[in-house]
Amino acid sequence: MSDTQYRVTFQPQGTAVSVLAGTTILEAAAGAGLVIDTPCGGVGTCGKCKIRIARGETDPSEADHQFFSVEELRDGWRLACQTTVHCDIVVQVLATSLFGADHQIVNQSAVSGSREVLPSIRKLYVELASPSLEDDVSDMVRLEREIGPFETDLSLLRRLPKRLRGFGFKGTAVLADHRLLDFEDGDTTGRCYGVAFDLGTTTMVASLLDLCSGQQMAVASELNPQVVFGDDVLARIKHSSSCSHCLDELRAVVVEESSKMIRNLCEEVGVDSEHIYEVAYAGNTTMQHLLCGLDSSQLGEMPFAPAYSRGLLLSSREMEIPINPHGLVYVFPVIGGFVGGDTVAGILATELDSTDGPVLMIDIGTNGEIVLSYNGELWAASTAAGPAFEGARISCGTRASRGAIEKVALDEDVQIGVIGNVQPMGICGSGLVDLTAELLRRRIVSPEGRLLHNTDLPADVPQALADRVVTDDNEQTLFVVAQPEAALQRPVVLTQRDIREMQLGCGAIKAGIAIVLRNAGVRASDLAAVFIAGGFGSFIRRSNAQRIGLIPSEVDHQNIHYVGNVSLSGAQWALLSVEARERGEQLARRTHHVELSMSGDFQSEFAEAMMFADE
Amino acid sequence: MSDTQYRVTFQPQGTAVSVLAGTTILEAAAGAGLVIDTPCGGVGTCGKCKIRIARGETDPSEADHQFFSVEELRDGWRLACQTTVHCDIVVQVLATSLFGADHQIVNQSAVSGSREVLPSIRKLYVELASPSLEDDVSDMVRLEREIGPFETDLSLLRRLPKRLRGFGFKGTAVLADHRLLDFEDGDTTGRCYGVAFDLGTTTMVASLLDLCSGQQMAVASELNPQVVFGDDVLARIKHSSSCSHCLDELRAVVVEESSKMIRNLCEEVGVDSEHIYEVAYAGNTTMQHLLCGLDSSQLGEMPFAPAYSRGLLLSSREMEIPINPHGLVYVFPVIGGFVGGDTVAGILATELDSTDGPVLMIDIGTNGEIVLSYNGELWAASTAAGPAFEGARISCGTRASRGAIEKVALDEDVQIGVIGNVQPMGICGSGLVDLTAELLRRRIVSPEGRLLHNTDLPADVPQALADRVVTDDNEQTLFVVAQPEAALQRPVVLTQRDIREMQLGCGAIKAGIAIVLRNAGVRASDLAAVFIAGGFGSFIRRSNAQRIGLIPSEVDHQNIHYVGNVSLSGAQWALLSVEARERGEQLARRTHHVELSMSGDFQSEFAEAMMFADE
Repeated sequence: MSDTQYRVTFQPQGTAVSVLAGTTILEAAAGAGLVIDTPCGGVGTCGKCKIRIARGETDPSEADHQFFSVEELRDGWRLACQTTVHCDIVVQVLATSLFGADHQIVNQSAVSGSREVLPSIRKLYVELASPSLEDDVSDMVRLEREIGPFETDLSLLRRLPKRLRGFGFKGTAVLADHRLLDFEDGDTTGRCYGVAFDLGTTTMVASLLDLCSGQQMAVASELNPQVVFGDDVLARIKHSSSCSHCLDELRAVVVEESSKMIRNLCEEVGVDSEHIYEVAYAGNTTMQHLLCGLDSSQLGEMPFAPAYSRGLLLSSREMEIPINPHGLVYVFPVIGGFVGGDTVAGILATELDSTDGPVLMIDIGTNGEIVLSYNGELWAASTAAGPAFEGARISCGTRASRGAIEKVALDEDVQIGVIGNVQPMGICGSGLVDLTAELLRRRIVSPEGRLLHNTDLPADVPQALADRVVTDDNEQTLFVVAQPEAALQRPVVLTQRDIREMQLGCGAIKAGIAIVLRNAGVRASDLAAVFIAGGFGSFIRRSNAQRIGLIPSEVDHQNIHYVGNVSLSGAQWALLSVEARERGEQLARRTHHVELSMSGDFQSEFAEAMMFADE
Repeated sequence: MSDTQYRVTFQPQGTAVSVLAGTTILEAAAGAGLVIDTPCGGVGTCGKCKIRIARGETDPSEADHQFFSVEELRDGWRLACQTTVHCDIVVQVLATSLFGADHQIVNQSAVSGSREVLPSIRKLYVELASPSLEDDVSDMVRLEREIGPFETDLSLLRRLPKRLRGFGFKGTAVLADHRLLDFEDGDTTGRCYGVAFDLGTTTMVASLLDLCSGQQMAVASELNPQVVFGDDVLARIKHSSSCSHCLDELRAVVVEESSKMIRNLCEEVGVDSEHIYEVAYAGNTTMQHLLCGLDSSQLGEMPFAPAYSRGLLLSSREMEIPINPHGLVYVFPVIGGFVGGDTVAGILATELDSTDGPVLMIDIGTNGEIVLSYNGELWAASTAAGPAFEGARISCGTRASRGAIEKVALDEDVQIGVIGNVQPMGICGSGLVDLTAELLRRRIVSPEGRLLHNTDLPADVPQALADRVVTDDNEQTLFVVAQPEAALQRPVVLTQRDIREMQLGCGAIKAGIAIVLRNAGVRASDLAAVFIAGGFGSFIRRSNAQRIGLIPSEVDHQNIHYVGNVSLSGAQWALLSVEARERGEQLARRTHHVELSMSGDFQSEFAEAMMFADE
């Protein structure tokens, strides 16, 4: 047990990430924005997640011995899902191991995929003729002769004459489209960075990109500090209008956290924040409104109309984001009050709109976003899944961080996997999915979601499991997942109330899927593929997710794909490609917004979906 | 003698101005931005300046009796040049009396002329459908369905949702081109204003315009407070780079004075400054740079390259101009380091570029701007005339305000006209032109500019005049223009040094004209017309201006026209017409910049021009 962190560097991407000892390379890759394909769900049976350890020691697992020769093992070949990190290592990733390699779908690595890196931000090194009496044009025109017509802001124009002269009329112009953002001394064309944000209700993820190469340099994730004001969007909206400075307070904390994350990313890889010229944010509609300090109270009332819908290009100074002072902040377009920029980013990143056959994308988070692509058309809905999948509102719930139970299997007793291999301190979303599905399979929980009393358990429940079903002082039935090892620790338990939260979350997503499919006239059995998105989505077991209703049971395992944090990937692409950004704007406009509260049948559908399937 | 101010209102323009008792209606009209044509130079001999006093008392002058019948006189008909103000009056102006009526040249009245009032600022009253579940588009899109696509700034977007709802989805959108500047409660389409500034080195003039009707509501002029840092552009440039906060200090004082003038104009006519949406500034290149806080040191060094040349559209907030907080500030395009926005505005206002035959425009101020239009081409130069024409650097010099000697004639003795009919306290530009010309005519000053000693005067100089040539304690020869009436007052005198200043100013303009004409291959005798511009230009006597070399002597009196403050008129047109603004941008680009310091012959030309003509 150790909380030591190790550095994992991926080749040829150049991306690095710091992880706790015991993290699998599969998980580390996801943390670095690389989705390694795992058709088997990461249990070591399909052999698709082949990687090579180029530097650092790792012992081969049992599964590794089945898939690799002794020579290959000696050469460092391993399965990413079975190999854990116990020192600083360098990992080589096969392009064919990355998700999307076979599917022509761009995966999360900013560099791979077929798209051309052609960002809005451009740097041009120029050497201008010095002014003379024969050539006394204005400084702006002198520069425009080299870089084309541009607009600029007053604060830069104020400094331009001194800079041009101080730099001997040589330097690097920084352009965003036709806007001059800066003029720097010497040739700085190689130093050009951007930061993409996935701005979640619960979690914020930031990725520092080299805009020249398109490579991700570093990635970081933090809790959205707004959680102290409420754990779902409605609570935040309510808080935003509860006092005159509350909206600004919500804005300020997320801006402050963004700033801290940007500073840390810069420090980690030695980048000067002055050389970051653009930040892109993809989040749900409410998160984006709050980030911009936009009045959000109308998002909490029917008909939930957002203030804006096209993407916003704002000044970093006005947004108080500590990058280049003339830099820009791009905030994604939104589809509707509850279907926001994260969904647009997801469609953009997966190119969902150009897939064949009906394809469903489910982004599981505090809001569950559901998108269907069929015959060139797109439908999107958002459903309030609640924060259970991110470990909140669950008695022993926790985020997917050190000490979280992230895997659960029930055989003769409980088998758990804990992040960081430490004493379990709580249970995170993927653990909850496993646990709920396993309790259903063992009939310790009924299809109606009732945790049976110890005396009502089926006869085939092993004694060790049966002993874990206890009744507390308040006559509440509990399932004890893990007993404390030390005197003052508390056990990790699942309560009847927790199961109800899971039912609500699963029911909301299941009902949402049903209504979106019905709107498009598609049956679940017709689905060619299902994409599971979200940081959470990468680590849930497919069969368990299907068991509890998160994924339609009609879909074959091999057609369920983890696409990772597509909100982040989309935000990255908006930084890396003007064409992608423009496509995102179009996608937002042409996606049908399925308003679930408008569907007369949502309540009955939801009530029915609350019941777990009987097997 | 009185310093009482009276209000003069002009019909049908609706413009009003407050003037000192004794001001002529011709002068009051100029102050209100109306140039009444006076081919005779305002001496009551041509009868062209007919006006009618619709309300208020005025005694007919001798000249009035020659031009009007008793019935007409009783009906209020007068000559504007001969009628002085001694109570509040309302004046009717014949369209045919306004300069330009015959010439198809737009005069200073913002409303007259052939141009269409079609400002960049538009107000649209809209009534929107309230959001519903069937129609839940974003607030921006809802508004765009009525007013077309727009951009807006973050601060307005932040308030838009609350405003739309608070106003019941009805209100007035304020647009500048495709930019939403504001959204106001109810129908405010009738309240839409702008302020045009002539930003002179010595004098600032501001005009409040009704952007709906195009009418001027009020006008004001003040000393440019930057004069304390130096009275010409080079002194200001030098000061701007003499300390780290000096540039900002220069910027701040002119912004502060602008703000005060805007507040006063608003108060005068009861306009809310929130309903002013745009301000336009026309000034010389240095004044415009300093106003914007643009680094100006390079304007003081060869080759005098400006920072920018296209017009700038800036935010009122960033410029700290107290109009609507989302308002805009337009700063004119410039032609070169010393030929600025005031010249562009002048060409625009007079439509100089579309005149037939070679036409010369001379704007006499601290900088003398010279523009020639010939065969569809334009040449412009600027010459450092010095502030003498604005009364500065002259021992008894003063601005054209109360107590200034503005007219001088020498017959048996000195005849003077004093602004406000009070005890003379100094002499202003037009008085200096008169005095210098008259002293030359009487040969009290030699063609070389020497003020003759009392003992060397020609025999035909009347004794009273001869007695005014005295020698002071420093052996300097003086001409006493006016003796003090009270014990502690000092006499108004003209010194040898003052005559040298006038020589320098006249020589600079004369040499500038010669070089511009030579560049275009035009002889002075070919000139079809000369336009005299500038607040100063309206009141100088043509023959005297020709006598001292400000206007080529080859030009016939009837071809010399006073066009008034065309810098202000051009700034007004930029507010009133997007087409005019665009034309101004083109004019700035296509005008040849004649750099006088580049002309090898400027120094010799200047040396020669310093000599007054021998008659």
